Formats: sequence, structure tokens, C-alpha cells
Amino acid sequence: MEPPRKLHVGVVGLGRMGKRHALNFFHNVPRAILTAVCSIDDVEREWATHTLAPSGVAVYENYDDMLRHPGMDAVCISTTTSVHAPQTIAAIAAGKHVLCEKPLATSTDVSQTVVDAATRRPDLKVMCGFSRRFDASYRDAYAKVRSGIIGKACVMRCQTGDVLDPTGFFVNYAAQSGGIFVDCAIHDVDLALWFFEGAKVRSVSAIGITAIEPDLLQYNDRDNVMGMIEFEDGRIASVYTSRMMIAGQEDSTEIIGTEGKLTINMIPVANHVQIYKPGGIHHELPQNYWERFHQAFTTEAVEFTDCCLDDTQVPVELASAVAAVEIASALQEAMITGNKVVFDDKGRRISSSSGQAQRRTKL
Amino acid sequence: MEPPRKLHVGVVGLGRMGKRHALNFFHNVPRAILTAVCSIDDVEREWATHTLAPSGVAVYENYDDMLRHPGMDAVCISTTTSVHAPQTIAAIAAGKHVLCEKPLATSTDVSQTVVDAATRRPDLKVMCGFSRRFDASYRDAYAKVRSGIIGKACVMRCQTGDVLDPTGFFVNYAAQSGGIFVDCAIHDVDLALWFFEGAKVRSVSAIGITAIEPDLLQYNDRDNVMGMIEFEDGRIASVYTSRMMIAGQEDSTEIIGTEGKLTINMIPVANHVQIYKPGGIHHELPQNYWERFHQAFTTEAVEFTDCCLDDTQVPVELASAVAAVEIASALQEAMITGNKVVFDDKGRRISSSSGQAQRRTKL
Amino acid sequence: MEPPRKLHVGVVGLGRMGKRHALNFFHNVPRAILTAVCSIDDVEREWATHTLAPSGVAVYENYDDMLRHPGMDAVCISTTTSVHAPQTIAAIAAGKHVLCEKPLATSTDVSQTVVDAATRRPDLKVMCGFSRRFDASYRDAYAKVRSGIIGKACVMRCQTGDVLDPTGFFVNYAAQSGGIFVDCAIHDVDLALWFFEGAKVRSVSAIGITAIEPDLLQYNDRDNVMGMIEFEDGRIASVYTSRMMIAGQEDSTEIIGTEGKLTINMIPVANHVQIYKPGGIHHELPQNYWERFHQAFTTEAVEFTDCCLDDTQVPVELASAVAAVEIASALQEAMITGNKVVFDDKGRRISSSSGQAQRRTKL
Amino acid sequence: MEPPRKLHVGVVGLGRMGKRHALNFFHNVPRAILTAVCSIDDVEREWATHTLAPSGVAVYENYDDMLRHPGMDAVCISTTTSVHAPQTIAAIAAGKHVLCEKPLATSTDVSQTVVDAATRRPDLKVMCGFSRRFDASYRDAYAKVRSGIIGKACVMRCQTGDVLDPTGFFVNYAAQSGGIFVDCAIHDVDLALWFFEGAKVRSVSAIGITAIEPDLLQYNDRDNVMGMIEFEDGRIASVYTSRMMIAGQEDSTEIIGTEGKLTINMIPVANHVQIYKPGGIHHELPQNYWERFHQAFTTEAVEFTDCCLDDTQVPVELASAVAAVEIASALQEAMITGNKVVFDDKGRRISSSSGQAQRRTKL
Repeated sequence: MEPPRKLHVGVVGLGRMGKRHALNFFHNVPRAILTAVCSIDDVEREWATHTLAPSGVAVYENYDDMLRHPGMDAVCISTTTSVHAPQTIAAIAAGKHVLCEKPLATSTDVSQTVVDAATRRPDLKVMCGFSRRFDASYRDAYAKVRSGIIGKACVMRCQTGDVLDPTGFFVNYAAQSGGIFVDCAIHDVDLALWFFEGAKVRSVSAIGITAIEPDLLQYNDRDNVMGMIEFEDGRIASVYTSRMMIAGQEDSTEIIGTEGKLTINMIPVANHVQIYKPGGIHHELPQNYWERFHQAFTTEAVEFTDCCLDDTQVPVELASAVAAVEIASALQEAMITGNKVVFDDKGRRISSSSGQAQRRTKL
Repeated sequence: MEPPRKLHVGVVGLGRMGKRHALNFFHNVPRAILTAVCSIDDVEREWATHTLAPSGVAVYENYDDMLRHPGMDAVCISTTTSVHAPQTIAAIAAGKHVLCEKPLATSTDVSQTVVDAATRRPDLKVMCGFSRRFDASYRDAYAKVRSGIIGKACVMRCQTGDVLDPTGFFVNYAAQSGGIFVDCAIHDVDLALWFFEGAKVRSVSAIGITAIEPDLLQYNDRDNVMGMIEFEDGRIASVYTSRMMIAGQEDSTEIIGTEGKLTINMIPVANHVQIYKPGGIHHELPQNYWERFHQAFTTEAVEFTDCCLDDTQVPVELASAVAAVEIASALQEAMITGNKVVFDDKGRRISSSSGQAQRRTKL
Repeated sequence: MEPPRKLHVGVVGLGRMGKRHALNFFHNVPRAILTAVCSIDDVEREWATHTLAPSGVAVYENYDDMLRHPGMDAVCISTTTSVHAPQTIAAIAAGKHVLCEKPLATSTDVSQTVVDAATRRPDLKVMCGFSRRFDASYRDAYAKVRSGIIGKACVMRCQTGDVLDPTGFFVNYAAQSGGIFVDCAIHDVDLALWFFEGAKVRSVSAIGITAIEPDLLQYNDRDNVMGMIEFEDGRIASVYTSRMMIAGQEDSTEIIGTEGKLTINMIPVANHVQIYKPGGIHHELPQNYWERFHQAFTTEAVEFTDCCLDDTQVPVELASAVAAVEIASALQEAMITGNKVVFDDKGRRISSSSGQAQRRTKL
Repeated sequence: MEPPRKLHVGVVGLGRMGKRHALNFFHNVPRAILTAVCSIDDVEREWATHTLAPSGVAVYENYDDMLRHPGMDAVCISTTTSVHAPQTIAAIAAGKHVLCEKPLATSTDVSQTVVDAATRRPDLKVMCGFSRRFDASYRDAYAKVRSGIIGKACVMRCQTGDVLDPTGFFVNYAAQSGGIFVDCAIHDVDLALWFFEGAKVRSVSAIGITAIEPDLLQYNDRDNVMGMIEFEDGRIASVYTSRMMIAGQEDSTEIIGTEGKLTINMIPVANHVQIYKPGGIHHELPQNYWERFHQAFTTEAVEFTDCCLDDTQVPVELASAVAAVEIASALQEAMITGNKVVFDDKGRRISSSSGQAQRRTKL
């Protein structure tokens, strides 16, 4: 009897998330074999040589070399955003399935090039990893909305609250992240597109401040931002995104319908423990999005693997990932200019309202 | 030994809230005596004749007549918004202390006339009743913010969620309410002014939909709206206001600072009971804002009475009530026009951004 | 038109609870007038002279004198437990309605003398104040159980958790309190009798320790105790009572039925505020039973007043208060002796099981 | 380079839990290989032939045959309780590591035979699987208690609430389960032994009823039981165990110390979703202990595997599993007889108190 075929996966980028993706495919995906990893960073490769190579995982410095690794079926891309699109396109060209970290790119146009490349190879699975779509709670909420228990879902309120990183890592990262809306709020935008079934954007507005990291202003970025989105079909959504959460990771979502409402994670909790001390009761929170969503990343990897091996449709449509970039980058622009960004009913941008430019304020 | 002096109070307007104010002064304010009530509505007066008159409360049809009631010290105004200002001014002219329901008026200019009248009579106490300022939880949060435990408070997220009234009462009420921002969200605007210590508004944006009551469009109103407010000092706030809450009254507030965050009522509860039935655990919610805030209304009446009798400062400054109307009415306008409304650093409105007018959408 | 008749009330005992009762009748009971107070303690009387006398409240040192106060209709007894019964009986003899703090006495026999006295004067209202029966959450739960939503209620789990009093006040108080079961757990016993509709006790068992106050052993008392109660009809209940709660007052109850379960106050909260600080989310608790139940005490006083004025039945039957003492004192005995206390089907005690006496343990 | 050695595991018993153990070792334990399974039940073996055999897992009918499977290192025993001990002893005799489901046996004596067998083979890892010790929340609580944040832990309150199984499966199962204390409450007893560091039992008392399944009486079992445990060092614990939970799986624990308190799972939740519908807010619960604890079972399998491969100490001492059976079976006896079961300070049972035998009551 033949053992079942497994998916041979390479992971490029071994930074914080890359390590997690690599270990995830290594340990937690029964139908996948981590066959190779790649990083241009010496320290990251050293980690891989120490941790993964003894188990037979090949370690590459050069991405094109890894793409030629014998027998590799698929690539997981967790490098910096600016190379997501070219690396995805190169992998497609090399005939590999691709799981690419969000966002596809910081601009709509570049994101679209990925879709174009993928369209030419319908035999390959290409998926942008919006991890929340694989989280058990979001899926439960989604199923409930689809079942109609809240009537017509028409309003969303979203929050992506990253725990404060006192090292200020994200300041320099802002140079190429596309900004906080494109880097963080894109998760909420994706949730809106998911729950609102691909509704088309009509307008976006946004404001923001630098409450703790004024240096972000040099990159046209902020640390606390708010945005509002109108969709063509009359639904609306608001997002609040912050890099200043003190207590832990706070990602919460409200989906409000004509006959009810669903919330996900309104009061974050790390586990089932509560601590009673003088004055009150305390509970801990996940300290980063990995602690909150690590199971979702496993599910994502497992399902991507299944799609590749079983030739089924990926659960997140690639076109939706482009729409998410379009909305998120428009929010970033609206925040920088102080103007509303408006789209016509074909989804094309029309001249934005000529409001006064946002004055930069340091608290 | 002489019995202590009590405040003789008249209540005008005996609708839903008026009845509550009257009974509140009648039962729950030890230093006040409900001496008279007034309503132009026959049914309301009949209620008063039946309920209050047997205990010696005078019942009037004409407001000016009530103002001449012998020995009356103060008036509580809970009529329809359009007469709040003239009735307050008339009471001041008659030398009465005034507790006026929010808002003072639907326009900034009219609201200001109340302040002008009050300024000329510094011997009288004139207060606009923003009930949340008297709620124990909001006060606890306020004290904690002042104590510095969240660092600098710089972001607020507010929700005023009125339980769905299937009678559609609020549709006709919209004709003179000033709209959902002026009628409901003004509570959140007031909270922002309170917690942000009177910060001056710089800009407001808003969007809205009619998810359940398309007839609101004829009054330029909506049933679900969102707004964003920028303040001169760089703080920001968002509001979500709805008349469509299914589960009950949902008024929640988040105050986010550089060193922590406070929330008030993130998951509403009616009491301490939880119900375990097949499938899960259930708890009930207050079914309207009175159930949620009735204690606050009592505190408000008690403290207003104390201020009048003891000649101390009222806890809500009247000027703040004007600022709240200014911001709330600007939000309403921003929603209707689709344009951001911008203020200069003197707080004067400058021409709003000439965006495309909001297209009216019916879901 | 004549003003409505009011109930003239005297309060005896002005300790911690007595002051609260006096102020409650003074401020919060519209149909009652606080007409007199009485205390044998100089400091307490001085407080009354300063606080209440200026409003016309008479202050007595001698209880019999107060009973002769002209026009007094009713007495509220909040003295030390050992005089509850004689003072109640004296008030009945003087023709007064009586609201007596729990417990009626520390023994069943003495408790019964109160019932006997009351039975001879059916024109008078005599009620033992079990405050939880007047709490909105307990009443809501009670109504839900009666409505049948949990099927047959057959198991109760109760907790009375008093916040730790570091002054050790309760050590000396133990000399005459009847012990922690009679002083504190009696609330839970009363709840069981209420929810289980006066079910008759069949047996009780109990254990206990002195975790923080070994000096309690000299009074045969403990600071943390547990008990189990079997009723004749096959229902069961457990109680946990502690004087060592660190975070605040923790009184919680579970009522478990064949088709569902109700809980009251499983996670105590002081208000609607949550505090986000590094590491997690915190909320405060009521710091004593008054903070938790003050509304219930007002409702109790209001309803007692109504019963007296309107000649209706008191909401807590006096016989139930005797049954509560019987069970609570049997629990205390079971804990001290280490033996189960058993009752026959007439409710008469039969010789307890001759287990080994409890060894005294100091942690 | 050699691939790392893996642990070859066989699973015996493929009932509800057995299937889960088999799939767990198959999918979720990177360092283990599921090499064989065994069941005397035709349907269970058919399932294995269909599900596991295609991947190379051998399927046995006879346990001794499986013990001779070439290269098998360890056995996971998830058969019915009555064969736990002999199968464990046989596996030890065959030189296999053993992970045995709880309890070791329904009697202390038989349980001890397992310890004796294991003691003779110190080279083998023999562990009784108390799953809660591997749950992240219990571990977090345990670490916090050890760190001293609640002072001296001296009181525990435990609840094991199995969701009602309307098929009545557990009635027949009661014939050999050892009863509800031995089958279910043993988890809570184990938690007490864990958190109280192996404290020795001094006495146990228990009561119980058949609220929904009177047929349990024929097996001397009940469906709702309560017990109290005294330990030699003066700590105390209570357990409530039910097979009647309507809303879902409810396993909660309170650990109360002299300086604070910890709770685990006071209000059970299935995930982060809350549902707002008319009347209130609802959330779902895990529908069985697997949904609540499946991660714990994975951790258990992973750690057991690590211990075998790395020759480290198993995280649950075998002697503790015997002590748990001793206490749990004494609780069952105390419930049946109505007598307290008392132990001397050597841990030997002394004659139990000669109380009246429990009368059997059907609600």
C-alpha cells in the first residue's frame, strides 16, 4: 500500500511571521512536508540551519534557487510586503502553488498583477492569507450571518488593536508597509468584504493621530486611525486601528443586522483564568496576534494544503485581496489628505473631495 | 426647630420622559417637592390629575400659568426639543432655576440664546441634563481618567444604540428632533467634551443609512449613522448611533489613552442573572435607556436640587451644552451633504469640503 | 384634600447596619417617616443627634421609651442578634409592626417564640429581613424558576463571600453571632427555602477551617466553611461561606434544574467599567454587602411600609425565618461535632450520626 | 543525516475516546507514529480499517497480539475502566510505555497493582491521563498559585458538569464505571491533589440524587452529587458533579487562598462569538468535554511522547492517580451509605461514622 501523497512546501522569509509559518508547516500540517526555507538574512538562515535542517529541510539564501528545489509543490511567502507580488508571480511562473501573506501589495495596480498572473495558471492555487477568515470564531459568526439569524447584515464596526511595541519597531517598518490602514486595517476591510459578500466600495474617509510615535509622520503614517467606508449597496463599516493597545491584542468585530447583531471578541481573553486580588478581578489577554490567531494560521495552512492536493477552490478569492488593498490604500490616502475618496458605480475612483489637507497634529 | 427648606419644582411636558421626571422629583428627591406639572396634552394632564393631584400637585395646561405658581423655585423642562429654549428662557425670566432636557435646541444659535439668558441671571441655576454624566459607571471612569491611570486620553469610541421601536415612533419625531446625531449621538458628543475637557472641534465627517425606516429620508434623517470628530488638540472620537438594536439598549464607550484604556458597558447587562438553556448561556439587557440610566436621572435631580438650595455650581456647564449641539448638528449636516465640516482654530466654521453630495441609498 | 397617611418608623440599633436602616427610612421610603431612633451606645446616639435630630427625629437611649414614642407605628430592629427576639416580642406587645434584621435568634427555640408572639397579633406585620429576597436579580431569577424555564429546580449551590475585614472585627463578634453559618450562610439557607418552596430539611453536614483567624476556634467558629443540605423531597444544596474574600463581596448562587440552570452574580462586578492596563483587563467589585445590596434594602423598607399601610401580607413568611435558623444552626453544629445532623420526616431532629469529633486544625 | 527517532504508539480501545486518542497520535503528535490500534468491537475495527489502515496503521482484535507488534514502543489505553489495570500491567510486562486513561481502576487496591508493576520497571514511562493537568488554563492557574499570588491556597470548589446525554448511555455505563464520583469527579479530586500538593485525605462526605435517571439507583449511582473533602493539613474542597447540564459542558474550578482567588472557566464559552437577539445576548458552550479539552489531549499526547523519547519524568505521578481513586471511591461510598468516611493520619481508613443509611429518593 502506497503512503498518501504529501504537499512539499517551501517558505520564504523567516522573520517573526516566517518562522511561525515554517514551524507550522513543519509540525502542524499532517499532509504537508516542509521541504525548504529561504531567507536573505544570515541570522534567520542560521536559525533554520539549527532548527530545521537536522530534520532534512533545505535552507536557501536565494529565492530563485529555492524555487528550483526538486519536488517542491508550493511556496509560502512571508517576506516584507514590497516583494510579496514579485515573489508570488515568480512562484507562479515556476509552477508552484502560492500562499502569500497579506497584503498582496501596497497598491491596487501591483496587487492586480498577481491576479493576472494567477489567472493565466488556473491549475495553480494562489491564495492571500487573511488569517481571520480561518479563525473558528469568525467562521462561526460567518455561518450564523449566512443562516440569516441577524437578518440583513448592514453595519460593521471593526477594531484591530496591536499591542504597543515599545521598541518602536513599526516606525521604521512604516517606510514600506503602506501605512497602518494597509498593514493592519486591511484585516478589517477583508472582513467587511467577506461578510458583505464582496460589496463594492463607494467612498472612504479617515482621520488619524500620532499619540505615541510622532516619528511616523515622516512616513505619512499614524499610530491611531479611524476610517469609515460606504459600500454601493448601502452598507457601511467603520474601522479603528491602533498600535497603542496596552493590555494586549484587541481585535474585535461587530456585525449588525436588521434582526440581530453578532460580536466577535468584544472583551479579549487569553484563557479561562480569572484572578481575584484586592480591589477586583483581572484577566489576561493574548499579547500579540499570534497568541490570538495561531490556530487560525494552522487551519489556513491545512486548508491551503488540502486545496493543492485535492484540486479544490481556495477559500479566499484572490480578487477580494485586491479589493481589500484598494480600500485600505484609499483609507490611508483619505487620512493623509483629509479628503474623502469617492468611487463611481463602476468602482473607479473619481476626483476626491477637495477638502482642506489634514493638518498634522502631534498630541 | 424649623424643618429644612425644600425646593419646589414644576415639571413641564408629561410625555414618556416627562412622567419619569415628575415621578422622580415626587418620590426620589428628598430635598425637593413636586409642586406643579404642566402639559398641553389632555391625556397627559388626565394622568397627572389621577396620579399626582391627590397628593397636592397642581396640574396646569398653560406653561406661563405654571410659571406663576406660588412658591415654585425651579422648573424641569421635558417637552419637545423645539420649545426647550423658549421655555428655558421664559423660566429664567420668571426667576426660576431650570433643569432642561437635552438638547438645548437643534441649532447652535438658538442654544446660545439660552446661555445668554442664563448669563444675565447668575443667581439662577440653569443646567442641561446630560444624564450619562450622572451615571455611576461614567463617573467612575471619569475619575479614573482624571487620576491618570490611562495616561493621556486621546481616542474615544462611542455607541448609542436605541432598542428598535417597531412602532416607528421616531420617524415622525424626526421632523423636529434635529436628526439622529442631534437627538441621540449628542450624548456621545457630550461625553467627548467631558472626557476631553472641552476640547474644540476641528472637523467632523459622517455617513448613514436607512436600514429599517426608509421614510426617515424625507426628514434628512437615517437610522444607523457613523461619525468621526477631530479636535483641535489632536484627539479623535468616533460615534456609532443606531435605532435598530434588537437585544436592548446598548450604550457603550471606550476611552483610550497612552497608558491604558477604559470601557463602559462593553457588553450590556440588565442584572446579575444568567440563563443556561440548550445551546448556551443567555442574559437580558435593559430594554430602553430609562432602564439603563434611571439611577442617573435620580442623581441628576438630586444634584440639581442641591445646587439650587445650596447655591453651588451645576455639574454640567451650560456652554458645553452649546458646543455639543454645534458638533452634533455639524455631524448631521456632514452626513446629509456627504461633506466634511471643518472649523478654524477659533472654532468658526469654514467652508466645508465640496465633496459629492451623499447619494441616498435604501438598502 | 388630605395628605396620605405615612408610616411612622423607629429604628433601634445604630451600628453599621442600623445607621443604614435609619437613613434608608429617612431618605428613600416615600410613604415612611423616620420618627425616632434608639441606641444604648453614646457615640451612635451622638451621630443621630447630629444627623437626624435636626430634621425632627427623636433620639432615645432606652428601647422601652422609644416604644412609647407617640404616633410610632413600626419598629426596625438592627441591634445585635441576641436581642432581636426579645425586642421584637416587646414591640409586638406594644402594638408595633416589626421589621427585624436576620436572624431572629441563634436558636430555633428562641426564634419560635417570635412566631408565637406574632401569631397572637395577626393585625401586626412582623417580618424578618432577608435582604436578598428583595434584590432585583434574585427576584428575576425567582420569577424565571417559577415560570418553569429550568424545569424542576433540584440543586442549589450558594456562596456568601464576605470581603476580608483585616481588623478582625468578626472574631469578637463570633462570641454571640451564633457562628458563621447562622450569621452569614443563613442568607443562602433562606434562598434554598425560598426557591425550593419551603422544602423540609432531612440532613446537614458541614466542615470548616480557620485559614486566617485561628482565634475563632475559641468560639467554635471558623472563617471558611462548607455545608451540604438534603431536603425531604430529594433536593440538595451546598453552601460555601467565607470571611476571606480578597477582591470584594462575592455572593453567588446557582439554581440547577432538569431543563436549565440560572445563576446570579457568578462573576461579581461593581459597575460597568473595565480597566485595560498592561497584562490584562480589570474590573472592580462591591467592597461589602451594602454596596452589593443597598437597593434591596430600600425595596425591603418600601415593601414593608406598604404592607403595614395597606394591610397586605409581608413578602417573607416568619415561619420560614425559623426554618432558616434551624438549618443554619444545625450546620454550625455539624461542623463543630464532625457529625451529620439528621431530621425525621416530621422535621424533628433524630440523634446525629456518631462520627468522630472534628479535629481542630490550624492551617 | 539520520531522521529523528519517533515513538511508535499503539492505541487499545476505539470507542468515543479511543478514536480521539488514535487520531490525535495520528495527526497531532509530530514525534509519534500511530503504528497499531486494537479493539474487540467489530464496528470499531471496521472504522479503523477504513480510516487508519490505508495509512499503514495495523488493526488488531486481540490486545496481546498488538503488544507483540514489531517496533511498538508505547501503548495508549482507552478501553473500559475495568480493564485499565490489567491492560496496563500487561503492557508493562511487554516492556511498553503506557498512557492510561483515568481512572486506573475503580478500587484503590487494584489501582495500587499498577503502581507496583510500574515500580518494577523504572525504565518505562507509565502515566495516568488526567487531561485537565494539560489544559492551558489549568496550567496557567497552577503556575500562578505556585508563584504565590493568592497566598496559601486552602479552599477549592470544583464542578464537573457533563452535558445531558438524553440517550441515557451513562445509565448502563454505571454498571462498571465505579459511579459518578469515580468516573467524573475524579478529575476534580485530581485537581485538588495537584493544587494542594498531594495533601492526604482526612474525611469525605457526600450526598446525591437522581433528578433525571432514577434507573441509576440500581447501580448505586446518582446523576447529581455533591461531596466535601477534608485534608490532613487543614485544607478543604467541595465537588459538584452532574450529568444533567443543559447548556453544554461546564467544568469550573475555584482556588481560594489567603491573599486572593483564582477561577477557571466560571462562565463557560465555546468561542469569542456573542449573539444579540430580542431580549438579550447569548453565547454558546462546548457541547462535551472533548470540545472543551481537545487541546489538552493533544498536549498530553505530545508530552507523554517527549517523556518516552527523552527519558524524562512524566508530568502526572502515578501514585497520585491511586490517591485520586481512593478519595473518589470513598466519596461514592459516603454517598451510598450516608456516612462520612474517615482516614487516620497514616491515611488508613478508620470505621466510618455510623450514620443512618441514605434514604433513596426519587425526585
